[in-house]
Amino acid sequence: MPRYAFKLEYDGGPFCGWQRQAAQPSVQETLERALARIDPAAPIAYAAGRTDTGVHAAGQVAHADLSRVWEAQRLRAAINHHLRPHPVAVVVVAPVDEDFHARFSAVGRSYLFRVVTRQAPLTHDRGQVWHLRHALAIEPMQQGARHLIGHHDFTTFRASQCQAPSPVKTLDEVVITTHPYPHGQEFRFFLRSRSFLHNQVRSIVGTLERVGAGAWAPEDVGRALAARDRAACGPVAPPQGLSLVAVRYPSDPFAGAGAAP
Amino acid sequence: MPRYAFKLEYDGGPFCGWQRQAAQPSVQETLERALARIDPAAPIAYAAGRTDTGVHAAGQVAHADLSRVWEAQRLRAAINHHLRPHPVAVVVVAPVDEDFHARFSAVGRSYLFRVVTRQAPLTHDRGQVWHLRHALAIEPMQQGARHLIGHHDFTTFRASQCQAPSPVKTLDEVVITTHPYPHGQEFRFFLRSRSFLHNQVRSIVGTLERVGAGAWAPEDVGRALAARDRAACGPVAPPQGLSLVAVRYPSDPFAGAGAAP
Repeated sequence: MPRYAFKLEYDGGPFCGWQRQAAQPSVQETLERALARIDPAAPIAYAAGRTDTGVHAAGQVAHADLSRVWEAQRLRAAINHHLRPHPVAVVVVAPVDEDFHARFSAVGRSYLFRVVTRQAPLTHDRGQVWHLRHALAIEPMQQGARHLIGHHDFTTFRASQCQAPSPVKTLDEVVITTHPYPHGQEFRFFLRSRSFLHNQVRSIVGTLERVGAGAWAPEDVGRALAARDRAACGPVAPPQGLSLVAVRYPSDPFAGAGAAP
Repeated sequence: MPRYAFKLEYDGGPFCGWQRQAAQPSVQETLERALARIDPAAPIAYAAGRTDTGVHAAGQVAHADLSRVWEAQRLRAAINHHLRPHPVAVVVVAPVDEDFHARFSAVGRSYLFRVVTRQAPLTHDRGQVWHLRHALAIEPMQQGARHLIGHHDFTTFRASQCQAPSPVKTLDEVVITTHPYPHGQEFRFFLRSRSFLHNQVRSIVGTLERVGAGAWAPEDVGRALAARDRAACGPVAPPQGLSLVAVRYPSDPFAGAGAAP
């Protein structure tokens, strides 16, 4: 059966996350329902990252085996037609070898977490950012983040229900930038790793926010990491600021897909 | 009675526009209800631009007379508290002289219209942009727009129900820019004038879109203007791409309000 990879974009707001759940709408179920409308075999979809409730994606990657061969642009249009009116879109489709697996072939994941600080409520970015009313200082957050780069036991920064066999991960990059925002300021946290533990990004951002607010010193982040104790973590940042923006593979499955608008 | 000017931001999606209507929620009614919660006199709000159904604002200006003097930051916080959960925010408050009128003192209005061209449906900017599946060429649109700059009879580009006494306006600026958009392209149309006719911006953008799509030649825009005939206009662009971004006064009422985040 021909296998296809899909680059997906979604607004996580209405979903209980990627993974199918009994009584709540999931992105996986939404995509699989659309696939079932075009393929009698009702294909199963596998994704690179099992994003949580309310977490968005700009570059999630999934794959599925279809019963027949499709021209990529037509397949994308057909799936998108059946995804309506849900805020999920297939932005690129590519045929892949049968040994490609969206999750197990992935060698890197990049997440973006957006924070907006301003006094006034938000009107256009609700559900897309973490809104704070107090100021954040970027340099202490950048200093604090340096303690987390590299190969560490991230027990402090993973959810108690995390099912990963080991808490040891290599965090390749934490880049924090600041941007103008109308009547406020935006902070963007980019994190890159081969893979992440459950709630790792939100735990790290929530801890760095304490540093930016001046409640923690940058060195406290290193101490929290060294404690290898969930109780040493700062408050977990809320899901709506988070987006899975990129997944890397040894060879880009979408390289031949062109930049069709 | 002390008069206050408010800079307002709103998502126009849930509203029938600025102006109060009998049976539909309006921004004016929403703001006046919030004002009534903090002032027993139930102040009336006047705005610079009567934005239409579904049209947004990033820099609408309104004013109202209150029964007592307020510290500006406290007044902003109190109104924003009572505006919840509506997507309307007061971003700046300033005390103004009693001869300041949000509408009649204004000497310039700036609108932004956003268009996104891409094949895939939109997931995060629904209701914020005009989504087109075909490509647009920017240069012909810029050439077409040049025919509209200056002092003209804009009968072609105003709604038949427009109540302005004269169809003659001076269009100071039409700037069209293009920006990267994930898996597509974004076009931004900035229009500036002392004041606009009803549906003028959407009529102009809808006409320029025809030029960008190749259906009209740039010169056809000049011919449509010269016709002074509503039937000569291109299709009117939909409201959700439009936002009132700035209002100018002889002296900026918010100049002393600082850049409090």
